[in-house]
Parts: sequence; C-alpha cells; structure tokens
Amino acid sequence: MKNLIIHEVGIRDGLQAEELVVPTEQKIQWIKELAETGVDIIQAGSFVNPKKMPQMADTDVLFNYFAREENKLKNIILSGLVLNEKGLERGMACGVEMFCMGVSASETHSLKNTGMPISEATERIIAMAKSVMGSGKKVQVSVQSAFGCGFEGKIPEEKVLSLVNKFLENGIRDISLADTAGHAVPDQVERLFGAIIKSDPATECVCHLHNTYGLGLANTFAAFRAGVRSFESSFAGLGGCPFTAIAAGNVATEDLVHMFQKMNLRNDIQLNKLIAVAKEAAEYFKRELPGVIYKTGKIPEISKIN
Amino acid sequence: MKNLIIHEVGIRDGLQAEELVVPTEQKIQWIKELAETGVDIIQAGSFVNPKKMPQMADTDVLFNYFAREENKLKNIILSGLVLNEKGLERGMACGVEMFCMGVSASETHSLKNTGMPISEATERIIAMAKSVMGSGKKVQVSVQSAFGCGFEGKIPEEKVLSLVNKFLENGIRDISLADTAGHAVPDQVERLFGAIIKSDPATECVCHLHNTYGLGLANTFAAFRAGVRSFESSFAGLGGCPFTAIAAGNVATEDLVHMFQKMNLRNDIQLNKLIAVAKEAAEYFKRELPGVIYKTGKIPEISKIN
Repeated sequence: MKNLIIHEVGIRDGLQAEELVVPTEQKIQWIKELAETGVDIIQAGSFVNPKKMPQMADTDVLFNYFAREENKLKNIILSGLVLNEKGLERGMACGVEMFCMGVSASETHSLKNTGMPISEATERIIAMAKSVMGSGKKVQVSVQSAFGCGFEGKIPEEKVLSLVNKFLENGIRDISLADTAGHAVPDQVERLFGAIIKSDPATECVCHLHNTYGLGLANTFAAFRAGVRSFESSFAGLGGCPFTAIAAGNVATEDLVHMFQKMNLRNDIQLNKLIAVAKEAAEYFKRELPGVIYKTGKIPEISKIN
Repeated sequence: MKNLIIHEVGIRDGLQAEELVVPTEQKIQWIKELAETGVDIIQAGSFVNPKKMPQMADTDVLFNYFAREENKLKNIILSGLVLNEKGLERGMACGVEMFCMGVSASETHSLKNTGMPISEATERIIAMAKSVMGSGKKVQVSVQSAFGCGFEGKIPEEKVLSLVNKFLENGIRDISLADTAGHAVPDQVERLFGAIIKSDPATECVCHLHNTYGLGLANTFAAFRAGVRSFESSFAGLGGCPFTAIAAGNVATEDLVHMFQKMNLRNDIQLNKLIAVAKEAAEYFKRELPGVIYKTGKIPEISKIN
C-alpha cells in the first residue's frame, strides 16, 4: 500500500477548461509521459455530450486506444468521469477501469450542472455507483462545491457530511471532496475531512483542490493533516479559465508532489518528468501556466560545502 | 491580547530587494496607508550601511519623521532591523520602538552576511539584544536560514533549536524563525515550531516565510497549527529578486490576512485597504507582483440565493 495516492486529472479537468481542443495524439503522448512519472491514476476524459464539450469528444477513442494490449499502460489506472447513465454506458463499452462521478452540495450548482436538485442527483449517482460496483470496477464519488460555491457562497458543512453519509450507507468507500470554486480554507478542509475520517476511519478520502485564491497547497497540507492520503491534481496547474483574472486552476501535480517529496513521501515519483510535462504544456498553450516549480525549479539539494 | 499579530515587513524586506530606490515620501505614504489597515507592527527600514544598500539609506529619516508628535501613528509599533552595534546606536538615536536582529543557522550564510562565524555572531547579537532589553525597548531575535540555506542546503534542526535555546537562556522571548531561502516545507515548519513551543510555551514565536517555491501559505498554516501566532509578511508579496526566475518574495500580507480572516481571525484588519496598497505597489513598480488576491479579489461572500 502506497503512503499517498496521486490522481492526475489534468487531461480531463485541465483540458476541458481550455478553449483550444487538444488533438487525440497530443493527449495520448501526455498520458504516456504522465504514466511514466509514477503517478497512480490518470483521468483520461469525461463522458459528456461532445456537442457541449468538444474538448472531451475523444474520450471513448482514448480509452479504446489504451485498452488495446499493445498500448496498455503499466501500473496505472485510467479513470473516466461520468455525469449520467449514458456516460456510464459509454465508459463501460470502452474499458474504463475506474469511474468518477459526483453530486454538488450546492442546489444552484446542481441545477445548473445537471438540471436536477441535489436529492434527485444523489439518488441517480448512488444507483450508478452501485451498478459500477456490481460490475467489479472501481468507483469514486465526489461532493462537488464541498467548500463553497461560486453561485451560493458558503455551503453548510452538515450538508456535505450528510451527502457523504448517504454514500457510505450505500457501500461507497472512495469519497472525494472537491473544491470546485476554489473557496476552501485550511481549517475548513481539516475540519470536514477530520469529521468524515472520525465517523468512519475506513473511508478512502480523496481531496480535489483548486488554487483559485492561492490556497491550494495550504489546503492540501490541511487535508493531509486530517488524514487524507489521496489527492487529485493537474500537471502545470491546468484547469483555470484562461480568460478571467482568476487564472489558477487545479493544484499543480508537480507542486504537490514536490511538497510531499520534501516531506519524504512518494520519493518514487519522478518529479523531473512531471516538471518536463508541465513545461511541454506551457509551450503547447504558449502561455505561462499557474504551476510554480516548473518555472522556479525544485528546492535545491546542496551538499554541504563547509 | 490579539489572537494573531501581523508584522508588515515589505517596506524593509520588500523594498531592499528592488533595484529602484523608493523615495522617502513614497515610503511615508505607504507606511501611513499600511498603518490604517490595522496591522500591528510595520518594519520601516534597516540600519545597514547606506553605501551597501542605498534602498535603506533613509531609514533614520523615516523613524525621525514618525517620532515627531504630529506624525505619530496610532496603535502601530514601528520596528527597525539592525545588523550590528553601529546600527543599534543609530536606531536608538532616532526613536525605534522595536529592534529586530538575527543570526543565521548556516555558517556560510553567516560568514557571507556578517563576516563572522555563527558562534561569534550569536554572542554579539545576544549582547545587543540585552542592551535593547536594558533600555526597556522591545527586541525580536531571529534565526535566519532556519529551514534551509541557498548555500548549504539542509540545516540540521538541532542547530536551529540550539540557537533558540541560547536566546531563551539569555532572557530573549520574542523569537522568529526565518525562511530566508524559501526552502521550508510544512511538516518541517510544524515540527520546528512545535519543538520550541513544547520546550518553552512562553516563547513568543514569530514566523517569517518566503514564497519562493509556492509553499508560503502552506507553511504559514503549518506554523499556525504548531501554535505560532505572530507572522511577518510583505504587501503584494514584495521581497523577491525581480531579476531571477524565482520571483516570489515574502508571503504577501493581504494573502495571509485573507486566509486567516476566512478562518475567522483578525477580522478587524481592513483587507480592502491592504489590497489597495498592494495594487499601488504593482502600479509603482510597473509589473505584476507575486501576491495573489490583489489580482483575483477575495473569495466572494455571496448571500445565498435559494
């Protein structure tokens, strides 16, 4: 059992935020390079309506590609995001190994995103999760907007915990809290995850954070302090909208791994390779991306000179 | 007693890193504006050789200005950095209320910075601190390069703790650990401050962090978790060298206060005014500065709409 799990979501959460549709070949190359860094899970896409999100239109093609014997990635799980039953069907048809799905803790966000109130969305997601578990595949369910909502502002913690409890009651153990709007602050992150882990220590808590207000790594450390050992992040910090003042996206994978390696965790991950992929992304998009250490380099290891 | 102390050091640590020498009138204006935000201490300058650091040449002028009855700032302590006995003499002559001084935990850094090995520098600083205490004024002593050194790399934690113990043995209670090179990581910050507070809970621990590798706020939260309640920071995140790839300086005061206010601490500080000063600094230097929320705005407070 690894002491920390890194789930790279840049190919999905990162690229879906870009206006530019990245060609399938480029995605395949990045996924291969990311797989070589030693991260544990790579989210390859989202089974969403391609008309609504052309950036994710090749998700089935990607999974089919990597399902072929000659292209299989070693020691990597490929995850796919599904929003509804149709997406789940598509994912099942192209060999997805791990399904990610979620319910928003904000009524407004839930209605805007799914057309359903939270209660209805929860029932459907639980049914979908059970169907995945029944097929023997891995499922992760997230509470979106768990730390605050761009439409509603504060989200009561009881609301988040009550959703988590419903998931747990239905046998779902792999649960992510997602800071969709980037509103999380460290004490809140520690308190919420702490409450979940205290109530059921067998929960596999996952943390999905955005760095919108510069608090991404502080929140990451707070989650770690609370006992979270599984983190979602995007190479180069992709995932922010490039057309707003608030450019920061997901916590950058290489920044997060850098912090944890300095804390003597997951030294098996090849940080230099992660940094190289981040640099490629910055070159590809021809702009500075939000990640820090692909620009500054790592904290230097100097052999003492006196 | 306030639940958190904010020591604004941008006028010193920030402006000394800029090539441009900021005129005294501009410094006075910023100090006045910063004083109005409700922070607790403002570091107005460094009593260093003006030939070596022309950016700090007007330090005596600034203190003399604010010592005059008509210019006195309300509810603000003005601190000054002193490097040696001559600086201390100058500071005493112009009414400094709080003296800051330090010893590096890195031999190489100590020799390069002061021409003295750590042992000699420690003796002199302790003598200076005692002389300040004898005069009834406030003194703060810091361990520089406490979390790593740009020349030496890792600094053994015992070395830092042994310096802190020497300070404590000599009656110095206000002790800062400074991350001069920006090498600190959260678990290290929590461990070091935790050890100090455990060994002597009456120590007034102060945390001085740089955001060089993006870990500034994560380290700030780690220090807070360890029990630190006093923080040094610079408006707009000034303090980085503008001519290197590693542009980030001190933790930005407005980012730090923003995080703590979201944790329901120091809501008396006027964050909007801090953001305004950061924006002025960015306009003054005609470049984007490292601070985050002066660009993104605060996490929005939205009144629930459903």
